[in-house]
Amino acid sequence: MLNFDFYNPTHIIFGKDRLESIGTYVPTEATVLITYGGGSAKKSGLIDKVKTMLGNRTFFEFGGIEPNPRYETLVKAVEIVRNEKIDFILAVGGGSVIDGTKFITLAAYYDGDSHDLLQYGLSLIPLDVAGKAVSFGTVLTLPATGSEMNNGAVISYGHGKYPVMSVLTFPKFSIVDPTLTFTLPKIQVANGVVDAFVHTTEQYLTYPVDAKVQDRIAEGILLTLIEIGDTTIAEPENYDARANHVWSATLALNGLIGAGVPQDWTTHMIGHELTALFGIDHGQTLAIVLPALLEVRREQKRAKLLQYATRVWHIESGSEEEKIDLAILKTREFFEGLGIKTHLSQYGVGADKIPVIVEQLKDHGMTALSETGDITLDVSQKILERAM
Amino acid sequence: MLNFDFYNPTHIIFGKDRLESIGTYVPTEATVLITYGGGSAKKSGLIDKVKTMLGNRTFFEFGGIEPNPRYETLVKAVEIVRNEKIDFILAVGGGSVIDGTKFITLAAYYDGDSHDLLQYGLSLIPLDVAGKAVSFGTVLTLPATGSEMNNGAVISYGHGKYPVMSVLTFPKFSIVDPTLTFTLPKIQVANGVVDAFVHTTEQYLTYPVDAKVQDRIAEGILLTLIEIGDTTIAEPENYDARANHVWSATLALNGLIGAGVPQDWTTHMIGHELTALFGIDHGQTLAIVLPALLEVRREQKRAKLLQYATRVWHIESGSEEEKIDLAILKTREFFEGLGIKTHLSQYGVGADKIPVIVEQLKDHGMTALSETGDITLDVSQKILERAM
Repeated sequence: MLNFDFYNPTHIIFGKDRLESIGTYVPTEATVLITYGGGSAKKSGLIDKVKTMLGNRTFFEFGGIEPNPRYETLVKAVEIVRNEKIDFILAVGGGSVIDGTKFITLAAYYDGDSHDLLQYGLSLIPLDVAGKAVSFGTVLTLPATGSEMNNGAVISYGHGKYPVMSVLTFPKFSIVDPTLTFTLPKIQVANGVVDAFVHTTEQYLTYPVDAKVQDRIAEGILLTLIEIGDTTIAEPENYDARANHVWSATLALNGLIGAGVPQDWTTHMIGHELTALFGIDHGQTLAIVLPALLEVRREQKRAKLLQYATRVWHIESGSEEEKIDLAILKTREFFEGLGIKTHLSQYGVGADKIPVIVEQLKDHGMTALSETGDITLDVSQKILERAM
Repeated sequence: MLNFDFYNPTHIIFGKDRLESIGTYVPTEATVLITYGGGSAKKSGLIDKVKTMLGNRTFFEFGGIEPNPRYETLVKAVEIVRNEKIDFILAVGGGSVIDGTKFITLAAYYDGDSHDLLQYGLSLIPLDVAGKAVSFGTVLTLPATGSEMNNGAVISYGHGKYPVMSVLTFPKFSIVDPTLTFTLPKIQVANGVVDAFVHTTEQYLTYPVDAKVQDRIAEGILLTLIEIGDTTIAEPENYDARANHVWSATLALNGLIGAGVPQDWTTHMIGHELTALFGIDHGQTLAIVLPALLEVRREQKRAKLLQYATRVWHIESGSEEEKIDLAILKTREFFEGLGIKTHLSQYGVGADKIPVIVEQLKDHGMTALSETGDITLDVSQKILERAM
């Protein structure tokens, strides 16, 4: 087991009707900015409900945070925070709204050009750079990214997607009420299952370090997602299926399963380029990249792929190669079964675009990916070829 | 899945040589009280090492916190905290030292008679009763109770053991270095495995609420403890076995697996009486009570016992009764295999003492135990009869 730090101070308020208690958690004297997305939270009446619950607090609104939230959008909210002396932000939405809000909380206190905050990648922004952030809480409406219980964000700017991480950007609280996700379009639910699944494999399918309990927990999340995947899409109001989906998605990226193990974020990093270049949904990009990555990296990931085959897919017979083949096939079939296509060509992107994607990876410094830093641009190209 | 709150702000600093960084985490201007136990931390040189790392900070020491820490002992430390204006406590030890320290942190700020703090049982002490506590961190030396990452304590007074819980008593940080546990006596290591195992079953072997992912995580902890149990005792310096033991014990009682599920703390509550009356080690009392409890409560726990049989013990054949019998037998054999006897009579306590134990349960208000509150004194008596 590798050494690790685990720290996660977010208070999760989980379950039916928990939104009713939100007045308890937003500071009573705060001037509040409510952030939200493209309109569904507004149309559904959720924003109005939240406003009512804020009672006599002074509040402002900032809607229109888009999927893959853009820097240019978020800086407009930063102006509101500064001008109106906002001291608490309430993000109502999914990963994009929460991610965007995390950036706003940092940028509002940042003296220089807030572009600077995009340059730290998967490293924490040093505290002497971003020393303060606006406090915030969230009301989650989409189970997928885990952003409701972590300190990470991904911000889009130009043709790039930039991770932003800070010890200051944990939500104070997140209201996680599965019933608030009942009205989501099926494709977003399916994308959410894939996102949580791939977050888990990225912290599990690496090389073994004898982190037995972390492996068991990762496998537990994968088994749960496999078990509830069809139901949470087909029966959106099946509370227990959705509750297990939502809580698994939160646990997949709250630091728990990544503590003490190697991590390989290649699937997300290549996936980000596919979203930035071609507008493919985040979850879809992961379903495209992961099976191809596992095929290309089967030697480096052999031991864990065999464990995955046995413990997650219950594959007991066959040679090692056959077991690994079948585990990858079952992964692909799981995504396809959720309605998510797993070949890049199925999204209208041909092999002629591979050089463009590789060039983007190069531009963004993604030249030494993986748990061992040895996925060069050549290897990424092979992965993309397999993903066609 | 039941509604739940999850909140755990303790920073875990896990791994080899992490003690070296303790100076970073103890506030630089603090006047520190170092608390510890009966002498092993002192004799091993650990306390001296910690003192060196505190550098120029002013510090005081309070040793002698006994296993099952006693109120009478702890109030002496409270005097030191008040007289010396201590503003940070560093607990160096296992669950007893950490539990005792939690009580000290609350009692130091409590205006009235600090006995009052013992009366809240498994409920949180209201914030208008205990409104403030001294900040504290821990250096863990014994993997068992999970106290290093939760807000609970058990304090002994007279012939009773009293749970104390407060939102104020999470450690700010815990240094969890498995190598610091290498020199523990084998019996304490074995007791620690049993304690973590039973913490897990108490949040798992109840009735099903379709909390799939919580169940998987609980099963993952049990499978890990079963896998490493023999090795962590036989090979104390096997780092990976011990690291998995330590982290499993922390995760077994940090709120994670209990979130959203029913809980049955009967084994601990009856076990506490056995410790208080007969001085049997805490872990041993759990190994005595759990198998008997499962036998007596097999109807109420049927569905989860069958799941436990299949997923934890891989029992695939036989009737339902046979599967449950075998799962309970394997549990008992696991404890015995660790060197922990599972019959009360093996500890020199005969059936003639059962009325005394039941009377103690009555005196301490333990008349409606279990996940459904229906373990009356009559049922506890049956459990004790089975435990002989």
